[in-house]
Amino acid sequence: MNNPFHTCHNSRIAGCDFAIYPMTDQFVDVITTALKEVDTSKVWVKTTDVGTCVRGKITHVFDVTKALFLHAAQTGYHVVFSGTYSIGCPGDSDGDVFLAEDDRRLNEAESKKIKQEVAGKFSLYPLGGGDYMNLIYDQIEAMKKQNIRVSSIHYATRLDGDGKDVFNGLEQVFVHMEHNGSSHTVMTTTISANSPSKKDVNSDD
Amino acid sequence: MNNPFHTCHNSRIAGCDFAIYPMTDQFVDVITTALKEVDTSKVWVKTTDVGTCVRGKITHVFDVTKALFLHAAQTGYHVVFSGTYSIGCPGDSDGDVFLAEDDRRLNEAESKKIKQEVAGKFSLYPLGGGDYMNLIYDQIEAMKKQNIRVSSIHYATRLDGDGKDVFNGLEQVFVHMEHNGSSHTVMTTTISANSPSKKDVNSDD
Repeated sequence: MNNPFHTCHNSRIAGCDFAIYPMTDQFVDVITTALKEVDTSKVWVKTTDVGTCVRGKITHVFDVTKALFLHAAQTGYHVVFSGTYSIGCPGDSDGDVFLAEDDRRLNEAESKKIKQEVAGKFSLYPLGGGDYMNLIYDQIEAMKKQNIRVSSIHYATRLDGDGKDVFNGLEQVFVHMEHNGSSHTVMTTTISANSPSKKDVNSDD
Repeated sequence: MNNPFHTCHNSRIAGCDFAIYPMTDQFVDVITTALKEVDTSKVWVKTTDVGTCVRGKITHVFDVTKALFLHAAQTGYHVVFSGTYSIGCPGDSDGDVFLAEDDRRLNEAESKKIKQEVAGKFSLYPLGGGDYMNLIYDQIEAMKKQNIRVSSIHYATRLDGDGKDVFNGLEQVFVHMEHNGSSHTVMTTTISANSPSKKDVNSDD
């Protein structure tokens, strides 16, 4: 690789660097149980003390991250997923072999059974292009066509609804960006379940 | 504002949208106690169920976020700070009045007393420009001159060291980007304290 301090890839392998934060003394159990319940065999996975990175086809990256969050949230604890999805980053090549997997999603059937209200937000960063704000606005409009409540907050767009719909909306944004030829797309998201705080959606949206 | 679904600003007000995740049943206490201990009077603050946003001068945005994390980490619980720093985003104008504050940092003296080993990571997203990768590489090089261990991970750069040094390094990156004329800079970071997991720094860095 050209620069050892920025390792990502110029193939079309997608990835997500994420962590799940269970706000409970049982946080280790919540995470290890979720990891056991989710089939990660179609993605490259690396877990460290600062998070987990999965890499592979877009469809499997979203299948796995959605399933991990939904299983952790199912415990009933206040659980937050925080992740950065990326595709097209110049750099290395770990996990390229996973691009040969077929498109059958290994966790979709189980995820479909889980109903979980969430409050989330996302930000989209199309890199290297000058017209990036219009690309962002277009994707926010597309998100409003999903079965999700979409509203405005600083530095991000707020999403309220069922966890599956929120993750599906995020995946659609990512797929749209890729189909529209964005060379390097980054999307960050934070999704919260079972928060003891009252929902605080802007009343003017 | 032109588009109600992306509210940020075209003045040079900086901001950070963040959350602190204490992995304990006492998570509410940890956060409310930290908020009481930190003086936020020089920044605009809004807290919702999906996070807190502070806005103002760069110096105060970092002073406040650093202090909140350090105070929360001082409890000894496994605590993670996850934040998005932003400046130059086109949009609204909440909090512009805080740009008139002087530069004296209200929490620096207390923060200096707190010694806290952390493991973190950051990603820099200079938006709207074509030469963004070189801007990123330059700032990673600058970070290596701080008193921090810098190494490579997917989609981010890992930072290990004292919490104060890590936050100071992040602030320097942000200030450099601003001085170099970047029109719209976004920097995401995750900083973890008191993790029960073994440090997992790449051996080849």
